[in-house]
Amino acid sequence: MQTLIVDLAERSYPIYIGERLLDKPELFKRHLEGEQVLVVTNEVVGPLYLEKTLSALDVPVKLSLVLPDGEAYKTLASAEKIFDFLLGHRFSRNATLIALGGGVIGDLVGFAAACYQRGIAFIQVPTTLLAQVDSSVGGKTGVNHPLGKNMIGAFHQPKCVIADTQTLSTLPDRELRAGLAEVIKYGLIYEATFFAWLEENIERLLRRDPSALEYAIERSCRIKAEIVGADERESGLRAILNFGHTFGHAIETGTGYGRYLHGEAVAIGMSRAADLSRRLGLLEEGEVARIIALIRRAGLPVASPPELDSQKFLELMAVDKKNLDGKLRLILLEAIGKATLPRSVPIEILKETLRQSSFPLPTQIVTNDKNPGF
Amino acid sequence: MQTLIVDLAERSYPIYIGERLLDKPELFKRHLEGEQVLVVTNEVVGPLYLEKTLSALDVPVKLSLVLPDGEAYKTLASAEKIFDFLLGHRFSRNATLIALGGGVIGDLVGFAAACYQRGIAFIQVPTTLLAQVDSSVGGKTGVNHPLGKNMIGAFHQPKCVIADTQTLSTLPDRELRAGLAEVIKYGLIYEATFFAWLEENIERLLRRDPSALEYAIERSCRIKAEIVGADERESGLRAILNFGHTFGHAIETGTGYGRYLHGEAVAIGMSRAADLSRRLGLLEEGEVARIIALIRRAGLPVASPPELDSQKFLELMAVDKKNLDGKLRLILLEAIGKATLPRSVPIEILKETLRQSSFPLPTQIVTNDKNPGF
Repeated sequence: MQTLIVDLAERSYPIYIGERLLDKPELFKRHLEGEQVLVVTNEVVGPLYLEKTLSALDVPVKLSLVLPDGEAYKTLASAEKIFDFLLGHRFSRNATLIALGGGVIGDLVGFAAACYQRGIAFIQVPTTLLAQVDSSVGGKTGVNHPLGKNMIGAFHQPKCVIADTQTLSTLPDRELRAGLAEVIKYGLIYEATFFAWLEENIERLLRRDPSALEYAIERSCRIKAEIVGADERESGLRAILNFGHTFGHAIETGTGYGRYLHGEAVAIGMSRAADLSRRLGLLEEGEVARIIALIRRAGLPVASPPELDSQKFLELMAVDKKNLDGKLRLILLEAIGKATLPRSVPIEILKETLRQSSFPLPTQIVTNDKNPGF
Repeated sequence: MQTLIVDLAERSYPIYIGERLLDKPELFKRHLEGEQVLVVTNEVVGPLYLEKTLSALDVPVKLSLVLPDGEAYKTLASAEKIFDFLLGHRFSRNATLIALGGGVIGDLVGFAAACYQRGIAFIQVPTTLLAQVDSSVGGKTGVNHPLGKNMIGAFHQPKCVIADTQTLSTLPDRELRAGLAEVIKYGLIYEATFFAWLEENIERLLRRDPSALEYAIERSCRIKAEIVGADERESGLRAILNFGHTFGHAIETGTGYGRYLHGEAVAIGMSRAADLSRRLGLLEEGEVARIIALIRRAGLPVASPPELDSQKFLELMAVDKKNLDGKLRLILLEAIGKATLPRSVPIEILKETLRQSSFPLPTQIVTNDKNPGF
């Protein structure tokens, strides 16, 4: 087991990463506040890990709430269900919520914990690779609004994060790969040696080698923690975490949510951002080739969706919430392991990048017909 | 005009207190973020002060949203209306909300500001005495749940508070007196000289003398700011602000919300807490008499509601949210100007205090038939 401390003064907390951590009641015990605990999970994760989680809790009152699965339920109405449950069972402000599931459950339960009686304790038990490397650090919680994702939320830090790599054994392949997109992102924006390690070990990760997963998750969380620790409220450096995401959000919106997984859209976004960096003379041709190759080896797409023409793509990027004032600023790369702060880009060059809707396919992998654009 | 800085490191903000401050656009200008402003108010305050407030705002986009008046609308559904409006008008995270109204509007709009895109700027323009001396300091925001008041909320500090004493000219007498209950509380728990000033000046306040109001509001906010500044997250000292409130909440619940105004219930609660302090040997008889006399001169009730027997009263106090673990802890007085931290009290003595449902009426004021218990 690896333990990483996210250093945020009086709100510091540990992330525990390793195999079969749900079998270690002492990890929970250290961080439970009060005598009342509510575990919130969904209909997919609940049957797999709820019983095990409840067994690990040594408190007088331990209840559970199982919500429907999916982004469609990351709403204020779901948060209200949690409030109803907490008040209906007379939970005090000295209670603990546990979020057992992927990013949707983590964001939703964290938000409910942030608002219940103006903030109670919560523990994250992320069960997807994406949640383990992304939601574990940063304190972002929230729900969607019909007019925009994550538009209602709060910053609220967990008491601890328990990332059990064993829970990834039940994760569908496609979701594992989507999580790897964010892992690759950390190497790209911050640490060339980690990127090189990924080039060496991507196949081990794809076959879910526990020690490789533990290493990659710890490294990813540590990089995110360093960035967030330097900039908790997202004013400067933290923006580099959005590398590939302005492109990615545009793809998700432009193709209809659900067609691409978030990580797949980000994978395309990172390849577009790398290509744009090269066109602007920031990044060498050879490094772009390494980036594209690794993303492809992870089984992820790199090319713009063919049906999204560059004009439409551009419009979608301009309405991303980071760009509501009309200026389009993007995170680019100066090298593998070194992102730039957001900078304005010439629209004509950006359009060239967007227009490039396909790359020659590498010979060693087979395309997946369900996911165009590989 | 008085300016009081609430010192909370990077979240510090000024409270401006004085006559006709809504006629000073420069006060708003200093604190507006971005180019989009939404003023949220209610159907009572809107017709009186919305136009004036909008005139004071020098920004490209200034919109308003008028909600129904009353505690019944301090709900998640009202917060959702604000989110709908903000997203419908494409408000960015670099926008400002203005809360124009009493405590309900302040708490609700503050909560919406805390959650919209994980926190945007907001300015409070409190238009009741209670809101000016209570909601201006502390950063507490929130909405009610059918099962409890203020159960969903956040800590979120305003960019500034603009307390225009002129807006109190339209406040009903009964609400003015209810606000004075909280003013008296600050003298009682923290500053004997302020209590003595109130004994000298209560009639000036009742006839809304602007300079007396300005002084009393500034002094009240300063006391609250000192207490909150020492304890932003409500772990220790801040509890003394709840002086009289555990009794008060029980009265509000036990008599049906709306029968007593919050300040009236707190006035009774303070007189009960003073009486209890005397019974426990903490406070001198003469000081209790001064406290009861001042509360009465402010036109406020001091005796328990006759229909609330001591057993019922006790049960209601035990379910107040500060006491969910079953122990009844109360703030008491050691002297005028000096509150104790919460302490357990012997139930039998507490019952004696609760049983005392009336005091001999002073000769100099006339009772108000609509408000039993004076």
